[in-house]
Amino acid sequence: MSVTAASGFRASGVVAGLKASGNADVALVVNDGPSHAAAAVFTANRCKAHPVTWSQQVVADGRVDAVLLNSGGANCYTGSQGFLTVHRSAEHAAQLTGTSAGDVVVCSTGLIGEQLDTDRLLAGVTAAAQALAADGGPAAARAIMTTDTRPKEAVAGGDGWVVGGMAKGAGMLAPALATMLVVLTTDADVDAETCDRALRAATRTTFDRLDSDGCMSTNDTVLLMASGASGISPSYDDFAEAVRALCADLAQQLLSDAEGAKHDIAVEVVGAASEQDGVDVGRAIARSNLLKCAIYGEDPNWGRVLAAVGTTQAQFDPQQVDVSFQGVKVCVAGEPGEPRDLVRFDGRDVSIRVDLHAGPESVTIWTNDLTVDYVHENSAYST
Amino acid sequence: MSVTAASGFRASGVVAGLKASGNADVALVVNDGPSHAAAAVFTANRCKAHPVTWSQQVVADGRVDAVLLNSGGANCYTGSQGFLTVHRSAEHAAQLTGTSAGDVVVCSTGLIGEQLDTDRLLAGVTAAAQALAADGGPAAARAIMTTDTRPKEAVAGGDGWVVGGMAKGAGMLAPALATMLVVLTTDADVDAETCDRALRAATRTTFDRLDSDGCMSTNDTVLLMASGASGISPSYDDFAEAVRALCADLAQQLLSDAEGAKHDIAVEVVGAASEQDGVDVGRAIARSNLLKCAIYGEDPNWGRVLAAVGTTQAQFDPQQVDVSFQGVKVCVAGEPGEPRDLVRFDGRDVSIRVDLHAGPESVTIWTNDLTVDYVHENSAYST
Repeated sequence: MSVTAASGFRASGVVAGLKASGNADVALVVNDGPSHAAAAVFTANRCKAHPVTWSQQVVADGRVDAVLLNSGGANCYTGSQGFLTVHRSAEHAAQLTGTSAGDVVVCSTGLIGEQLDTDRLLAGVTAAAQALAADGGPAAARAIMTTDTRPKEAVAGGDGWVVGGMAKGAGMLAPALATMLVVLTTDADVDAETCDRALRAATRTTFDRLDSDGCMSTNDTVLLMASGASGISPSYDDFAEAVRALCADLAQQLLSDAEGAKHDIAVEVVGAASEQDGVDVGRAIARSNLLKCAIYGEDPNWGRVLAAVGTTQAQFDPQQVDVSFQGVKVCVAGEPGEPRDLVRFDGRDVSIRVDLHAGPESVTIWTNDLTVDYVHENSAYST
Repeated sequence: MSVTAASGFRASGVVAGLKASGNADVALVVNDGPSHAAAAVFTANRCKAHPVTWSQQVVADGRVDAVLLNSGGANCYTGSQGFLTVHRSAEHAAQLTGTSAGDVVVCSTGLIGEQLDTDRLLAGVTAAAQALAADGGPAAARAIMTTDTRPKEAVAGGDGWVVGGMAKGAGMLAPALATMLVVLTTDADVDAETCDRALRAATRTTFDRLDSDGCMSTNDTVLLMASGASGISPSYDDFAEAVRALCADLAQQLLSDAEGAKHDIAVEVVGAASEQDGVDVGRAIARSNLLKCAIYGEDPNWGRVLAAVGTTQAQFDPQQVDVSFQGVKVCVAGEPGEPRDLVRFDGRDVSIRVDLHAGPESVTIWTNDLTVDYVHENSAYST
């Protein structure tokens, strides 16, 4: 039930005609309260789309009443006309849902550098407002899909309260968010500060550690809204863990639907001197096109792992590093270890483990292989 | 004539049986003097192959008498046995050419993590020493090829002196060198310090600005040897310009032979506040898999260019940036400019120009598109 799993929320997804496919492309999620606490994290890209710069202002005071989302166009690099489109659509959604534009977050996804058809978008907002329903979560989740092959929804929670969410994204999953829109809702009674703290902690070890293709989007938004409708205030730890679990679930769904990928790769870095070292090493490995091609070819090419490790400034001694593929330690202390023939690639999941022997920290970065289908899909996206 | 274009050098390339293909795989280049000045630059990768750590010591005193090169194995992550192989092959080459091992540079290229067959290598060194000839440059250039489809050779020079060179490399061309071996020879009478200064200046704006696939090799070496056999000492500027021109020529040959590439892309960054900003922005663009796929699909997807620019810390205002493809300014001041339909992709060369409007500096980074053939070639390399 995704964003309508928590009480106090209504949602909808409708066809506005922004997508050439004729599929649903406008979604609306409304928080009916009694509370309207919210927090969000946005792309770290310095080239941000208009909906992101708008929404950063909306969220700043910790209150969000509704979120309007569209696929079929990112509304990014669209100049003053594009900014006007965001403003007008937020105004329209606010009017129809009885709130003010300054409390409406806007999210867009699709091609960059093209104007959205404002008439179609506004008509879509009208239709979405009319379609709002307490079981509208799945329709909303479908309406935000782009190259996703399936909607992503998840639910987690505690005793008498829940957190539910939806996500879209199938590429550009890195770093620090990706062409990724995520809306989380909860009926727990938590204030905006708690939402912010729990959300940042959760994204740091989930979405921020996805690195599908090393590309960072201009539109990424992860929004958490709390209605307080359950009347229950969980402990911070319980709440934070539920938000983390939800983000981890959605992140894995994004990973397993990454454009053209044949394998999901968990790059586990252990023995790092610091968490940052672990992240740096994991990311360097996850971004090696040569390694990602090797995994596509089911080749445990540990030399490409070490070549990537060597590009970082992390603390390690090249003659101490171990590398395992699928549990087989093919490199021990920088030399050939167990025979690479022992490595079996069965199914979609691939495990790469690197032991730096430099400290106590462990970090896992998730990525995908680089495939012929990835190239096909991304060479034909806008044409 | 590559490395034997300059007088004072002999070279050879022979079949030692290191490559399964049966193609030539051991090359030797000997400087017969009278001078033996030399300089080299090596991979910035912290995981360096044994031949690199060996050769760094050899070059330290500014004298090199010979360079032994092999394809068919990188001798990297091969432990103490691998180091012994380097040492023994250098000793053997030194003995056969009447010098000392401490003046013999060793370069290896091929798969990482596999031992070289020492018997075959040493027999190959014997054969290579016997085959040394004043016109042996082309044979040497062929013997260092791996996935290269053709040998790379070039000659430049001035009045009565020349610089010649050979290169191999067809992937991992980044940053700060790549699976790239380059040997340059000159009969100009220049000292080691001049060689070092000219070589570093040349590589900084040529090989260091190639970024084929974002991957950095463990074995890269660019070596310059001067015999002084012409008896002519050119001015520093003349010499440096010849070395630069030679490096630029070889770099373009490497680029145009990059694994599986369909297009060579020149990413020109103008209006940068500093050279480093230009390099950072150019590299970020050159490493965007999404953009590289778009070029493969001949799609002038300028949104992916700006998304890459936004990941850097360079000085720029997103609302001031212009982007041109093939001379068509498709993005002006962060908004759609001329119609993307005007962009024509004819032939192999693609030009992307980004104007940051932040300062006077210009930098060009060269890269390739990301193609189905790249994925095929790199998913099957070691198997």
